[in-house]
Amino acid sequence: MQANLAVLPKDHAYDFLLFCQRNPRPCPLIEVTDVGSPEPVGVAPGADLRTDIPRYRIYKDGVVADEVTDVTPYWRDDLVAFLLGCSFTFEWALLDAGIRLWHVEQGKNVAMWRTNVQCRPAGVFHGPMVVSMRPIASSQLSKAVTASARFPNAHGAPVHIGDPAAIGVKDIAKPDWGDAQAFKPGDVPVFWACGVTPQAVALASRPPLMITHSPGHMFITDVPNSQLAAL
Amino acid sequence: MQANLAVLPKDHAYDFLLFCQRNPRPCPLIEVTDVGSPEPVGVAPGADLRTDIPRYRIYKDGVVADEVTDVTPYWRDDLVAFLLGCSFTFEWALLDAGIRLWHVEQGKNVAMWRTNVQCRPAGVFHGPMVVSMRPIASSQLSKAVTASARFPNAHGAPVHIGDPAAIGVKDIAKPDWGDAQAFKPGDVPVFWACGVTPQAVALASRPPLMITHSPGHMFITDVPNSQLAAL
Repeated sequence: MQANLAVLPKDHAYDFLLFCQRNPRPCPLIEVTDVGSPEPVGVAPGADLRTDIPRYRIYKDGVVADEVTDVTPYWRDDLVAFLLGCSFTFEWALLDAGIRLWHVEQGKNVAMWRTNVQCRPAGVFHGPMVVSMRPIASSQLSKAVTASARFPNAHGAPVHIGDPAAIGVKDIAKPDWGDAQAFKPGDVPVFWACGVTPQAVALASRPPLMITHSPGHMFITDVPNSQLAAL
Repeated sequence: MQANLAVLPKDHAYDFLLFCQRNPRPCPLIEVTDVGSPEPVGVAPGADLRTDIPRYRIYKDGVVADEVTDVTPYWRDDLVAFLLGCSFTFEWALLDAGIRLWHVEQGKNVAMWRTNVQCRPAGVFHGPMVVSMRPIASSQLSKAVTASARFPNAHGAPVHIGDPAAIGVKDIAKPDWGDAQAFKPGDVPVFWACGVTPQAVALASRPPLMITHSPGHMFITDVPNSQLAAL
């Protein structure tokens, strides 16, 4: 299982933890380290989150200040690391269930939008939910729901199926991030809550220091995707 | 949906929130209020947790100091209220699935034990998992698992089925709390994580102030049990 990283000072950690608790679809927490500890005891005992991710971004006051391969020089005793479940897990489940994913076949990124659906705020954190969209054949919609629903710790079931305008997506051909997707006849746009949400929300509050993985450079846990399935 | 209440000062709230995140089976969080606010906006907007529960216990330094029907005089600007999912929800799902529950038919309490399974600690909070046990006919074991698993916010699927000794339960006829259960031929002991866990763990840390509902006097939310089903 791959995971997204967000590191914040303890001052911001309570609000961020509560934000994730209140918004579990976009922010599925799989691990929170003890204050000052870079070891994700629950999902990768012995790992060091300061060095075991291939590339990191350092944000100061909400702006990228550095991109590095080792964050040891930036580490502090008051930092808390959050690992969040990642869409790779449910995409693996979709593929395993026989669902074709255009962006995987074409080597592209998914399409992502800022929606008009507001997250439930917590302390200093507030903002809209970001979604990713995949075109799914209408005959496979039910399977797409059941296959992803088994992984609530990786965004779970879709948050919306069909009409893009209903969640504030104005032009399905123009994503806010990622690549526009090709639709085959009968394909329906299916929207899942996206892990860009917590990062966007956290940065909007301009924390003095925030460390994340660089895009596409996630942390790899010791936990197989299949073990994340809901009981 | 009924819910258990635990109110703690903000000083203890981060550790308690993290404890619940790390131990979702015994501590299924369904609501955390904003600091100082007694309104559970997510599950009962407009309610007041200081007055809308029929009976409360006030703990000081981990010891019962008072039992009241209104906690307004004890409320402070630094208090955070936690509402936790309750076994009533999954028992309703079990009964709805046609599973007979001896303690319901007899008007008794379930049987509860402190196990030898340690919760994952968080800050000042640590302790063993408490479980509740219900005798289930072996022909209904699968149904008992699937019916309760749909409600992860109400303890979810059993944490153990069968051999009591494997989780440190020495005498199935002598519970630590509640009533001993009667077994019919073919019945198997089935153990679920119990909401007594977070209360026991929180009190063991002897917080200066903690407010809970009195046993059997839970908070009633606006959310029907059925809506708590996992998607």
